[in-house]
Amino acid sequence: MDSFNYFSPTEFVFGDGRESEVGALAKKYGAGRVLVHYGSGSAVKSGLIDRVTRSLDEAGLKYTLLGGVQPNPRDTLVYKGIELCRKENIDFILAVGGGSVIDSSKAIAAGVCYDGDLWDFYCGKAQIQKALPVGTVLTIAASGSEGSSSSVITKQDGMVKRGTHSDLIRPKFSVLDPRLTFTLPAYQTACGATDIMAHVFERYFTNTKEVEITDRLCEAVLITMVKETPIAVKQPGNYGARANIMWAGTIAHNDIVGVGRSQDWNSHGIEHELSGLYDCAHGAGLAVVMPAWMQYVYKHDVMRFAQMATRVFGCQMDFENPESTALEGIHAFRKFLHGIGMPINFAQLGAKEEDIPTLAGNMAEKYTTRGFVKLTRDDVRRILTIAAHAEI
Amino acid sequence: MDSFNYFSPTEFVFGDGRESEVGALAKKYGAGRVLVHYGSGSAVKSGLIDRVTRSLDEAGLKYTLLGGVQPNPRDTLVYKGIELCRKENIDFILAVGGGSVIDSSKAIAAGVCYDGDLWDFYCGKAQIQKALPVGTVLTIAASGSEGSSSSVITKQDGMVKRGTHSDLIRPKFSVLDPRLTFTLPAYQTACGATDIMAHVFERYFTNTKEVEITDRLCEAVLITMVKETPIAVKQPGNYGARANIMWAGTIAHNDIVGVGRSQDWNSHGIEHELSGLYDCAHGAGLAVVMPAWMQYVYKHDVMRFAQMATRVFGCQMDFENPESTALEGIHAFRKFLHGIGMPINFAQLGAKEEDIPTLAGNMAEKYTTRGFVKLTRDDVRRILTIAAHAEI
Repeated sequence: MDSFNYFSPTEFVFGDGRESEVGALAKKYGAGRVLVHYGSGSAVKSGLIDRVTRSLDEAGLKYTLLGGVQPNPRDTLVYKGIELCRKENIDFILAVGGGSVIDSSKAIAAGVCYDGDLWDFYCGKAQIQKALPVGTVLTIAASGSEGSSSSVITKQDGMVKRGTHSDLIRPKFSVLDPRLTFTLPAYQTACGATDIMAHVFERYFTNTKEVEITDRLCEAVLITMVKETPIAVKQPGNYGARANIMWAGTIAHNDIVGVGRSQDWNSHGIEHELSGLYDCAHGAGLAVVMPAWMQYVYKHDVMRFAQMATRVFGCQMDFENPESTALEGIHAFRKFLHGIGMPINFAQLGAKEEDIPTLAGNMAEKYTTRGFVKLTRDDVRRILTIAAHAEI
Repeated sequence: MDSFNYFSPTEFVFGDGRESEVGALAKKYGAGRVLVHYGSGSAVKSGLIDRVTRSLDEAGLKYTLLGGVQPNPRDTLVYKGIELCRKENIDFILAVGGGSVIDSSKAIAAGVCYDGDLWDFYCGKAQIQKALPVGTVLTIAASGSEGSSSSVITKQDGMVKRGTHSDLIRPKFSVLDPRLTFTLPAYQTACGATDIMAHVFERYFTNTKEVEITDRLCEAVLITMVKETPIAVKQPGNYGARANIMWAGTIAHNDIVGVGRSQDWNSHGIEHELSGLYDCAHGAGLAVVMPAWMQYVYKHDVMRFAQMATRVFGCQMDFENPESTALEGIHAFRKFLHGIGMPINFAQLGAKEEDIPTLAGNMAEKYTTRGFVKLTRDDVRRILTIAAHAEI
């Protein structure tokens, strides 16, 4: 096990109807004037924004609304948010939505406190030194952004998708009400679940030895997702399934299951190019990329893939031929993704094979220089070619 | 799944040699003048206290030393610590040791800020409203106190052992260096491991339904302990085993595996009477009590015990007779405890059957009024009678 620091100070407030506490929570964490940041009209139509602002009113807090966050959130709205916060003397950002809204809120929180260009944090030119406090009311289990130190946004000009990290943008609190996810369409539910599983797999495939505790914790989250996702896809109002997925989604990305081990974020890196170029859902892109990545790299550590196959997907270990078990596990993963309605190849995603050189060429440098298996751009092209033609 | 709040703001600093950072960490969390609280001479003899004070010196912090914490830490030393802190204007408590030292440090931290009698917090008369910040350097994986909100101390007068909880006494940081546990004797290593497993079992046996994620996380920790403990007992200098156990011990008790489900702390409650009366190690007492408790209550939910048997101890599920699988799992647990050198009955623990009425009579009320199975004092007597005569 490697040395590590683990710090997850977010207060998680989990359960049915708990968004009614958001005013008191914001106040507890120092809010005076709140920016309520959200996405599409659904948060308004469902009455959630009303309930949230009522709670802020009850706590005696002033607020300004800023909606319109898109999936793959754009820098353009972030700049608008920064300007608005400065104009209105906002001192707290409340994200009401999923990963896109939360990531955008984190970007605003850091941008308000920075004199330079916000994109500096995302292209690696600067480190976040200060940020306004952020709170969240989560409406989709997926990104884990409600408990993470990361934020990913997309530069409208050129559709470049990049991420940044800082403990300073970790949410002070996150309200997790599984009931808020009942209205999610099956496709979005499945995209979120795929993202959650990918967050665990990116940690699971490691070169670090003697990591039994985090291996087992990773497997615990994955087994849960394999069981609960098909239930939530078929029965959107199943509280138990939604609750299990929601807590799994937070744990999958606050790093409790990933500390002390080298990680691999190359599938995420490849996917960012897909959703950057095609504006597809991140989870859908991952469903196409990740099994292809597995097929391409599994020989690097056949036994680790066999372990995944047996422990997560319940495959029988073939002791004479572990490689066949490893491949069976990868196949089981892709079959699972197909079963919950995810695309598994380029055609189903709406991607084009002729774009592969562009996609591989654009991929951020950091993803090709580290990980379980280091990848050249040629490797990335081959992975994308496998992804393009995948079948179950 | 039930509603819950989860809050674990402690910064964990994990790895070989990381105690050299303790001065900088204490300073980061506001220390000016530190009480360095520790236990027996071993922390001095090993040179650990020297390394810690050197780090405090380097950070420019003043400090006062207070050693002598015993296992089952006494209120008498806590009162002495409170007095010392007031006299020396201490503003930060640094615990260097295991659960006893950390719990004692938390008691001092709360006591310094309280005008009444410290015991008020432990007998339920008062709630902690304020406490000095606490940091820890952990020397044994066991209590989970390095990441928990709880503190258990023993009143010298009458040897009454009681606990209290508050987010205000959660450590600001905890340094976890697996190498510091290399010198632990096999018996103490096994006692610590038993305590860790008990912390998980007390959460695992629940009446709450649809808790797949926390079930699986609990099992992840238990499976790890079953694998790693015998290695650490036989090879005290095995870094990998010590590291896995250390992180498992923290996770077992910071509640990440126990949120959203009813819990059962009755085995802990019964054990507190044993270690209160005989001053035995907490883990040793648990090794005697917990399998006996399981034998007494398993019929309440046979399938849950069969689940434990198959998933944690690798028993084959007997689908025609799940009860036999449940019993096989309990037997496997006791056999495991025996195998790592734990006592499994009264004679081996040094307890006396004639004390059973006293032990059951003294048990704190809260343990008999809630849990997986509510227990009358007569139930407790029967559990202790099973424990008295247990064999493998």
